[in-house]
Amino acid sequence: VTSTRPAADIDTLVTRAREGDARSVARLISLVENASPALREVAAALAPHTGRARVIGLTGSPGVGKSTSTSMLVRALRGQGNRVGVLAVDPSSPFSGGALLGDRVRMQDHATDSGVFIRSMASRGHLGGLAAATPQAVRVLDAAGCDVVLVETVGVGQSEVTVAGMVDTFLFLTLARTGDQLQGIKKGILEIADVIAVNKADGDRADEARAAAKELSGALRLVHRGSKGWVAPVLTCSGLEDTGVDDVWARVLEHRESLGQDGLEAKRADQQLEFTWTLVRDELQQRLRRSAGVKEVREEIRAAVLAGDLPATLAADRILAAYDAG
Amino acid sequence: VTSTRPAADIDTLVTRAREGDARSVARLISLVENASPALREVAAALAPHTGRARVIGLTGSPGVGKSTSTSMLVRALRGQGNRVGVLAVDPSSPFSGGALLGDRVRMQDHATDSGVFIRSMASRGHLGGLAAATPQAVRVLDAAGCDVVLVETVGVGQSEVTVAGMVDTFLFLTLARTGDQLQGIKKGILEIADVIAVNKADGDRADEARAAAKELSGALRLVHRGSKGWVAPVLTCSGLEDTGVDDVWARVLEHRESLGQDGLEAKRADQQLEFTWTLVRDELQQRLRRSAGVKEVREEIRAAVLAGDLPATLAADRILAAYDAG
Repeated sequence: VTSTRPAADIDTLVTRAREGDARSVARLISLVENASPALREVAAALAPHTGRARVIGLTGSPGVGKSTSTSMLVRALRGQGNRVGVLAVDPSSPFSGGALLGDRVRMQDHATDSGVFIRSMASRGHLGGLAAATPQAVRVLDAAGCDVVLVETVGVGQSEVTVAGMVDTFLFLTLARTGDQLQGIKKGILEIADVIAVNKADGDRADEARAAAKELSGALRLVHRGSKGWVAPVLTCSGLEDTGVDDVWARVLEHRESLGQDGLEAKRADQQLEFTWTLVRDELQQRLRRSAGVKEVREEIRAAVLAGDLPATLAADRILAAYDAG
Repeated sequence: VTSTRPAADIDTLVTRAREGDARSVARLISLVENASPALREVAAALAPHTGRARVIGLTGSPGVGKSTSTSMLVRALRGQGNRVGVLAVDPSSPFSGGALLGDRVRMQDHATDSGVFIRSMASRGHLGGLAAATPQAVRVLDAAGCDVVLVETVGVGQSEVTVAGMVDTFLFLTLARTGDQLQGIKKGILEIADVIAVNKADGDRADEARAAAKELSGALRLVHRGSKGWVAPVLTCSGLEDTGVDDVWARVLEHRESLGQDGLEAKRADQQLEFTWTLVRDELQQRLRRSAGVKEVREEIRAAVLAGDLPATLAADRILAAYDAG
């Protein structure tokens, strides 16, 4: 599919975005998010201007204080003179677009700061689409001169694994819990986390958070005993009191240093290859969803299967036949 | 695709399987497991003879004592005069086939019992294939007159969710742990479990297991407070000492009773519909894997992406073009 939009428009948008024009940045992200026919042109126009930003993933369960912590982190990064992009990825939300009230409310401290660009990414119901659009949105922000791009995701389904596959460093926020701080931590998260922060280490809860961090740190050392690679450090912080955030950022930078330039490039190359196959698989799923032939038969087949009149194997054959017929 | 094998052969196999001929059962399972062209014929020939068996999923982490517990459960079911089929699903194993030494060793108590059929199912590297083959294998055992079919899976990746989608009742085995028994339980498992058993409740560990079961039971009641549906009971058992297994089975039956006949049929119909789409998605993935066009370009594209010479979006376009060209 080729675009009917003149390529010159895309080039103009990229030029303006590189000059820091927020409207052009928003426009480019919309183009990649909607898997517009212009996606390929946008990617090609961006390519020469990308690769410079530090790309950081940030996740944690609802209630862990992600928004507040992100806001504090953005403030710290701005204080150091960085331009910052934030992509809030919520696979459970059907909404998207930089103009949403939610974006303004959730990080109102930065709403008037032209050095910060905030955008929600939505999945429209499928993580595959999100997995395809988000790395492109990162590249838009990278080309637009962001020194740091934060990709924030709520921990639903496979979203963290997806986000971990598109960032340089993956930061996991958790809480100290009474009893055992490991309880409730999603399995597999600790393996993909590069830096871990126990949040809400404030007031009465500070001691508990420190104890939890120490226990978690010990557990990680035990698990990774003998391995020569990076072992995720466990810190405490408080988004509310704005403490510990600088330390967390220092560890994020340290993680990236530990990769080395070659290691970082190899990691990004592997991610690009994985991303390639994500795009391919996503396109195949999209074709199935879009297929006029499938649309025509799906309700009838659904009814027949639910009524027990049609075995699943035969139903699948019919769907595939309808798909192949167009 | 149509089979070159005469349909009469399939009918003969089904007839012999229904008479309890283990070799014919094994042959039919191999046909569905290998996604043979005869799969559709097998499904059609089986259809009139299925729907009678109780289909029970059983999962737990490695080391939880699944094999021993399954063996005890099989013994209890045999003692009640049931014919029993066991499908051991291991998505991490490349091996399959009823003739494997492993199958005989792991349940040698039942090796000479003609009322028990044991079979390992392997995924050959993709869970999609397993998701497609296992419900068919269940149907073979159902048609072959098994009163109970146990689908046992090791808790890897999404395998439990997959198995939960093909059984009437889902039984989760866990262990009492020092400290907090919830620790280490994979997230999401408790939501899909219909009956939970804390295993190895024997000797010194019996008290600990009972305390753990009580705590877990309390947590579940708290979580499901106000819901009117089934709340998974938490029991203790010992595969080693063969205690508690009868109680576990009684609760499994109780769960199925709670569904009612209409509820059971609706559940199975929903599962068939989900299974239909699994088969469709699996076929699309298979086509991508088999595509001669893709095979031709994939190494070159891989190298170009890893070298940074080809952006992911363009690489995906090329793979899709190669796929579409055949």
